[in-house]
Amino acid sequence: MEKKNSEITSRDVDFAKWYTDIIKAADLVDYSSVKGSMIIRPYGYAIWESIVKVLDNKFKETGHVNVQMPMFIPESLLNLEKEHVEGFAPEVAWVTMGGETPLEERMCIRPTSETLFCDHYKKIIKSYRDLPLLYNQWCTIVRWEKTTKPFLRSREILWQEGHTMHATEKEAREETLKMLNVYEDFQKNYLAIPVITGKKTDKEKFAGAEETYTIEAMMYDGVALQNGTSHYFGQGFAKAFDIKFLNKDNKLEYPYQTSWGVTTRMIGAIIMVHGDDYGLVLPPNIAPIKVNIIPIKNDEAVLDAIKYFKDALTSNDITYNVDTTDKTPGFKFAESEVKGYPIRLEIGPRDLQNNQVTLVRRDTREKIVVEKSDALNRIKELLIEIQHNLYNKALERRNSMLYNNVSTYEELKDIAENKSGFALVDWCGNVECEEHIKDDLGLKSRCIPFDLQETSGNCIVCGKRATTKIYFGRQY
Amino acid sequence: MEKKNSEITSRDVDFAKWYTDIIKAADLVDYSSVKGSMIIRPYGYAIWESIVKVLDNKFKETGHVNVQMPMFIPESLLNLEKEHVEGFAPEVAWVTMGGETPLEERMCIRPTSETLFCDHYKKIIKSYRDLPLLYNQWCTIVRWEKTTKPFLRSREILWQEGHTMHATEKEAREETLKMLNVYEDFQKNYLAIPVITGKKTDKEKFAGAEETYTIEAMMYDGVALQNGTSHYFGQGFAKAFDIKFLNKDNKLEYPYQTSWGVTTRMIGAIIMVHGDDYGLVLPPNIAPIKVNIIPIKNDEAVLDAIKYFKDALTSNDITYNVDTTDKTPGFKFAESEVKGYPIRLEIGPRDLQNNQVTLVRRDTREKIVVEKSDALNRIKELLIEIQHNLYNKALERRNSMLYNNVSTYEELKDIAENKSGFALVDWCGNVECEEHIKDDLGLKSRCIPFDLQETSGNCIVCGKRATTKIYFGRQY
Repeated sequence: MEKKNSEITSRDVDFAKWYTDIIKAADLVDYSSVKGSMIIRPYGYAIWESIVKVLDNKFKETGHVNVQMPMFIPESLLNLEKEHVEGFAPEVAWVTMGGETPLEERMCIRPTSETLFCDHYKKIIKSYRDLPLLYNQWCTIVRWEKTTKPFLRSREILWQEGHTMHATEKEAREETLKMLNVYEDFQKNYLAIPVITGKKTDKEKFAGAEETYTIEAMMYDGVALQNGTSHYFGQGFAKAFDIKFLNKDNKLEYPYQTSWGVTTRMIGAIIMVHGDDYGLVLPPNIAPIKVNIIPIKNDEAVLDAIKYFKDALTSNDITYNVDTTDKTPGFKFAESEVKGYPIRLEIGPRDLQNNQVTLVRRDTREKIVVEKSDALNRIKELLIEIQHNLYNKALERRNSMLYNNVSTYEELKDIAENKSGFALVDWCGNVECEEHIKDDLGLKSRCIPFDLQETSGNCIVCGKRATTKIYFGRQY
Repeated sequence: MEKKNSEITSRDVDFAKWYTDIIKAADLVDYSSVKGSMIIRPYGYAIWESIVKVLDNKFKETGHVNVQMPMFIPESLLNLEKEHVEGFAPEVAWVTMGGETPLEERMCIRPTSETLFCDHYKKIIKSYRDLPLLYNQWCTIVRWEKTTKPFLRSREILWQEGHTMHATEKEAREETLKMLNVYEDFQKNYLAIPVITGKKTDKEKFAGAEETYTIEAMMYDGVALQNGTSHYFGQGFAKAFDIKFLNKDNKLEYPYQTSWGVTTRMIGAIIMVHGDDYGLVLPPNIAPIKVNIIPIKNDEAVLDAIKYFKDALTSNDITYNVDTTDKTPGFKFAESEVKGYPIRLEIGPRDLQNNQVTLVRRDTREKIVVEKSDALNRIKELLIEIQHNLYNKALERRNSMLYNNVSTYEELKDIAENKSGFALVDWCGNVECEEHIKDDLGLKSRCIPFDLQETSGNCIVCGKRATTKIYFGRQY
């Protein structure tokens, strides 16, 4: 019962501490007895359910179907694609005993499921008529991370992984970008998070992919979060797994493959983009509860008004909570802020005598006294306004930390040491220069942005002719 | 392209073979490279999604919220409740390596999550104000079964597990039965499966439970499938995990606990209760696709009619599929039966000339020629009729294999050796007599039925005064 805003460290004082304070105060996560694994509590899980519902519909609208693969990968299967196993083997959990019997072959828990999907595809793909196969899976994966942080990096991750197979390279490439686009739209229109879309460097791409595309979000502190990726595999896995189909010319050919995924780390992004010193701030389009109703006193007029609003919100498909606990109104207001409900609806006897109620926006904390009869319309308008405002605020802050005119290594060094955000620089394309920036300045390449990659300059590290512009930044 | 009904063994000839034929022919499951783990293919997974959607709503309507616990249980945590660990330790998968490092303490993959929930409850339960906690989790669990069969018994299982904590014994007992009732209603009204509800014997109850309640379904072959269970734990786990709360009298007390679960095995039950020699038969209330539209020819009138029905079905929230492949109509009809779509809608040019279309019920295979303008209403009626008919047929068959008047051991032996189904017998309550029936006749106790347990007779094995009637039967 002692939860108060004062438990939350200011985000401008200690951002890392602020993050863990928010997660605890808003009851999103609890730590478990299993090191590196988190318990997602009801409110945190409700946010994930809200995300899953929207994305799952978007995947189905674009022709995808869900399947469920085993969680285990026999070691021999993981070993089939060379780059893939080298990328993942060092960080998987190995099952070596079944009951009291040692296994003949150890199995890892899937860190990702390309190998399992390919093993299945080999059996079910025979002809071009079987293509495209547009599969998705919602599941948990395990990566044995050394340092962990709730939602951002944990040993067990909830995610979705799309895996598709196509008859032509063109179609597979289109799918890769189509799904990146689905992610970008989702981040913008639901999470209210602006992202930079582009291509990862060879060094940063997914183990086994020909190309990896990414959506890069910037947190309040200017640090990057890779918030979703989409991979084009070409025929690499198909060759390793010997998956062939008869094409329209009746010739055997390897199909072209993609995969794409997003995780619970998006919840971390919501927290770190929108949250403030009063707690979580949830964009209305993804908030499990959009209106938190707080009775100031439990007299008859207030109870009647609550009933009125419950009916009105229900019939307008607006989710709500009524705080009927015996806590004080002040405590309830604070808790409402901590939980980030987009709108707080205060119903008190004095307001009601004037046929009024009070609405409080979570994003601006503005109090708005409205006629009771006008409140429903105002709530509908506010939900739209808050969604837009959160996106615009996030965009403005992000843009204020984008350095798109960095021309010397000294400027880049100044940004790395004294500022925060992403720096767009000219790059020759060599991994040595990319690694130099990482080792010397602690900045990793984010992506080669689709819309800002053209250059006629010289590499910011070696001075040779640049082939592209590229973003660098610190990352979570 | 060679899928035909002739690939399906008759269920009266070889029921086990029929079952695996159906699963393959209807594209529900594929076997994976991981022994004992199945791949749930899109159509099989769509049935599961349909089940999850309905049940999840029912859980939420009854006040439950979803959470996500880790998939790992450290060995020391599993060991805390004595009966529980003895029941589960022999059949768990052990993770012993993280990357290239042996773990200090090995962890099993959850075979069920009581221990994880209790570990969390210990931290979050302080006062009676924190109770009840009504949690549920959708996840996969692992049990290292030696013999496996798709949906019925596999090493990895998709399920839900409810875990609740209450301030009083009365409330916890009510919860246990309330959720059993939710399961029973769901089986009846969605899966069209009649179940017998009752209590498990001490021998058959869940490891660590004080009481286990069950819903027992009977398959077409008279064999039982335990299709869901609900457990009352009393304070056993709470004591083992030292979970205490301050009650209203300000005294420390252990809370009372329940858990309840159903799994993908319900899909096995749907197959084995309703399926026939032509394939799967899905009850309309759970079928992912309710109407399968088959164009007999692709002329303009047919295409117009398809558009008309797509619009009409969509605006009535009736899911459908249009088979636009270039297969022959005969092949499409057969496939429609294999997949168990409740209604087949055949649209051909000749019918259309008379303003007619043809509906075919999957349950009775009856052909119904209707006016096109009347078809939508007829489809709506048929979906209700088929649902009822499937339940009534299943009930009738189940009742024909219930032997409720067995009074001698010889009669029971005759049923075990020459018949199939459940036999209701008088029982003294001693495990020796229960085990004798199992060892001698291969019948296991199903449950002590709520509505038929009263007796004034003598135990069918030892002849001593019976304390209850109880069902015995073979089981999957």
